[in-house]
Amino acid sequence: MDKKIFIPIILGTAREGRESEKAAKFVFEETKKYGFETEIIDVKDYASPVTWSMDPAIKEKISAKIKNASALIIVAPEYNHGYPGELKLFLDNFYEEYFYKPLGICGVSSGPLGGARMVEQLRMISIEFHMTPIREAVYFSSIKNLFDEKNNIKDPAYSERVKTMLKQLESSMRN
Amino acid sequence: MDKKIFIPIILGTAREGRESEKAAKFVFEETKKYGFETEIIDVKDYASPVTWSMDPAIKEKISAKIKNASALIIVAPEYNHGYPGELKLFLDNFYEEYFYKPLGICGVSSGPLGGARMVEQLRMISIEFHMTPIREAVYFSSIKNLFDEKNNIKDPAYSERVKTMLKQLESSMRN
Amino acid sequence: MDKKIFIPIILGTAREGRESEKAAKFVFEETKKYGFETEIIDVKDYASPVTWSMDPAIKEKISAKIKNASALIIVAPEYNHGYPGELKLFLDNFYEEYFYKPLGICGVSSGPLGGARMVEQLRMISIEFHMTPIREAVYFSSIKNLFDEKNNIKDPAYSERVKTMLKQLESSMRN
Amino acid sequence: MDKKIFIPIILGTAREGRESEKAAKFVFEETKKYGFETEIIDVKDYASPVTWSMDPAIKEKISAKIKNASALIIVAPEYNHGYPGELKLFLDNFYEEYFYKPLGICGVSSGPLGGARMVEQLRMISIEFHMTPIREAVYFSSIKNLFDEKNNIKDPAYSERVKTMLKQLESSMRN
Repeated sequence: MDKKIFIPIILGTAREGRESEKAAKFVFEETKKYGFETEIIDVKDYASPVTWSMDPAIKEKISAKIKNASALIIVAPEYNHGYPGELKLFLDNFYEEYFYKPLGICGVSSGPLGGARMVEQLRMISIEFHMTPIREAVYFSSIKNLFDEKNNIKDPAYSERVKTMLKQLESSMRN
Repeated sequence: MDKKIFIPIILGTAREGRESEKAAKFVFEETKKYGFETEIIDVKDYASPVTWSMDPAIKEKISAKIKNASALIIVAPEYNHGYPGELKLFLDNFYEEYFYKPLGICGVSSGPLGGARMVEQLRMISIEFHMTPIREAVYFSSIKNLFDEKNNIKDPAYSERVKTMLKQLESSMRN
Repeated sequence: MDKKIFIPIILGTAREGRESEKAAKFVFEETKKYGFETEIIDVKDYASPVTWSMDPAIKEKISAKIKNASALIIVAPEYNHGYPGELKLFLDNFYEEYFYKPLGICGVSSGPLGGARMVEQLRMISIEFHMTPIREAVYFSSIKNLFDEKNNIKDPAYSERVKTMLKQLESSMRN
Repeated sequence: MDKKIFIPIILGTAREGRESEKAAKFVFEETKKYGFETEIIDVKDYASPVTWSMDPAIKEKISAKIKNASALIIVAPEYNHGYPGELKLFLDNFYEEYFYKPLGICGVSSGPLGGARMVEQLRMISIEFHMTPIREAVYFSSIKNLFDEKNNIKDPAYSERVKTMLKQLESSMRN
């Protein structure tokens, strides 16, 4: 393949003290290692006030990034069995940009269930966006104990899991 | 019952040009007519920036309102099969305030399905809040044609539907 | 395209007096008109007793049909916000047969919401089967009044809706 | 309380080699220990053929049991992110019997997520049955390694989890 494949990673929380940032950075490194171009789109930087009026210049910039992507990854925590509000605000700004793109979701939770309910709820959203939610998700459980003080992941199995997701994203791309 | 029953109505969208406001006002009038005390809590007024830092004074005020309520009603549109982000940001600010309170949900949509998917997603959230999501929901479909230019509802069947919901809220209250 | 595209329609209820059969037959005719090969797989004929032991010869036959399909359509009613048990029993008999196939779902309900909740629940199942649940669903509402005594559909808009679904199935096929 | 509280446990799978039976028996013992009357209703014994025609005498018997219950527990595995078909067939036989009863759900899975998706899907069904799905669920993960050869549970934390669920069921009962 000549053209580089670009898969941005949406970090879907702006909460003070968020733990998902570590997971997003880990997924970012694995995605680069796999050979894809990638970058973290942090909803904290771009998310608009709750009045839905995202700055047009910023909106256009992100729109171009998403249009340009071959697939998308979302890394987000589960809050009360759902997705963070700021992630939904961010996602609802776009529509046709998503069409036909495979979506891999990485759930994050402090408990043992890895954000599994949030993953399901996002999948339903993504179908409305004409995306292809893939089966291979990554569930980051017990996030507070998953990384050491240098932010290295303690459980090496996660590398393989991210790789499995990336592989399925790749094989689900349209072109 | 001597003490007045208080059921606030959360208007769950801050979007420019939102249509759900009409539905919320209609539910508000019906709730008063039924004999309950009520008020509209508009997420547009209270919702915080996406950094999750709701002003402490405001937070305390709303917390007291929710604690004081016998039940809650949410009126919200469905955006891309899910709930608005600003509604989720609002809801995630509270937890024990919700415990054991019955919840009635009114979905709003421009299409014919009345926000039914949003209703289901909110129900899952509400269980995590230890609420009792009741069966009787109200589905405001084709919202753009549902009210006349004086904001009166054109389909009189909705009065009965809201009443059915209020009745079940009443019979689901703990005390 | 030389090779004929084959899209079987799974009729997902075995209930006495089921109304979904009319919807399935309507979708069947539209699918033929569109130019695809199709056939109705009726869970009533094939569904096994609840002990999960589908007859091996029958299982092999259906397995081949699904493997052979370019996409799948499910027509099923919503019972109590979920899918019929006999449909789930049927679906759980297979796994790799489904891989990478687009799935169109047609919900059926006696009420006005067209089985929308059932559609969402099936979509979550289908992702686990590595399928591609497409955005375009068809919602057969008020099913008891939707067909005349000759089983002709009264609302002509449904032809267009099925066509839209078929088009998206076609454009989501892998090869 | 003079009158004994009766909480039947529905074992929601009839699959050959089902592992959920162990979890159901464990929950049964814990429920007795807690002081409730209980019994296992096994969908394998009662579930009807897929034609929905449950034997009327059997149906009446189970109907009486459910009517008599103060709350219900369902123990069921997750198959492909959903509930077993035979469980849904069983549940759809009843309606008013469920009204206003608290429901505790115990998910079972061979993987690490304890059937969390199945729990969510059942909760949505239970709201349509006018039940009160409680927040406290029990997630039996990695079920194949959870019990020793004498069918004793290896992880003692599960006793506390079941107790927490029973407590919340108790405090959610109407009378």
